Amino acid sequence: MSKYTMFGQLKAQPGKRDELAKMMLESSETLQGMEGCIFYILNESVNEPDVLWIMELWESAEAHAASLKDEKVRAVIEQCKPLIAGVSAVPVRPIGGKGL
Amino acid sequence: MSKYTMFGQLKAQPGKRDELAKMMLESSETLQGMEGCIFYILNESVNEPDVLWIMELWESAEAHAASLKDEKVRAVIEQCKPLIAGVSAVPVRPIGGKGL
Repeated sequence: MSKYTMFGQLKAQPGKRDELAKMMLESSETLQGMEGCIFYILNESVNEPDVLWIMELWESAEAHAASLKDEKVRAVIEQCKPLIAGVSAVPVRPIGGKGL
Repeated sequence: MSKYTMFGQLKAQPGKRDELAKMMLESSETLQGMEGCIFYILNESVNEPDVLWIMELWESAEAHAASLKDEKVRAVIEQCKPLIAGVSAVPVRPIGGKGL
């Protein structure tokens, strides 16, 4: 099965980025336990004060899709939603390299 | 020392993306040997036919900067240059998550 990468942008409500990041990272038990997730790294934008970027590598697209149906993951998403102004992603497909 | 992430875009000359990706991946010995590099994953854009995206995680910004001075890395860059139309990056700072 092909691995799956994601580079997704979360735009927080104005001034709420740190609160949103904290909430996401506090759910670290959920994060660490996501099956098929090789890495999930939360980044802050250097030049856009409300923007977070998430870099993800998964064993497969199916594993990623399944995580979004997980009850604990859905609870974290619901908790974060009021702090999120927008979501987007750079659509990519991994083709090789180190760590893949 | 803080870890360092990079999400960089390489735009190939029209029609040259596959050739560029192949050239980058053929230098895998150089890629695997980069000191302080935790992962370096080459992706192709799903909707932009000439675009590659590189996801990188390094032990530190210094390790990343040092790699760009490495003789073998510089040789790969020089070899790829004629196939590259443009380079840019999403400036980010990692703050937490799984695999960091």
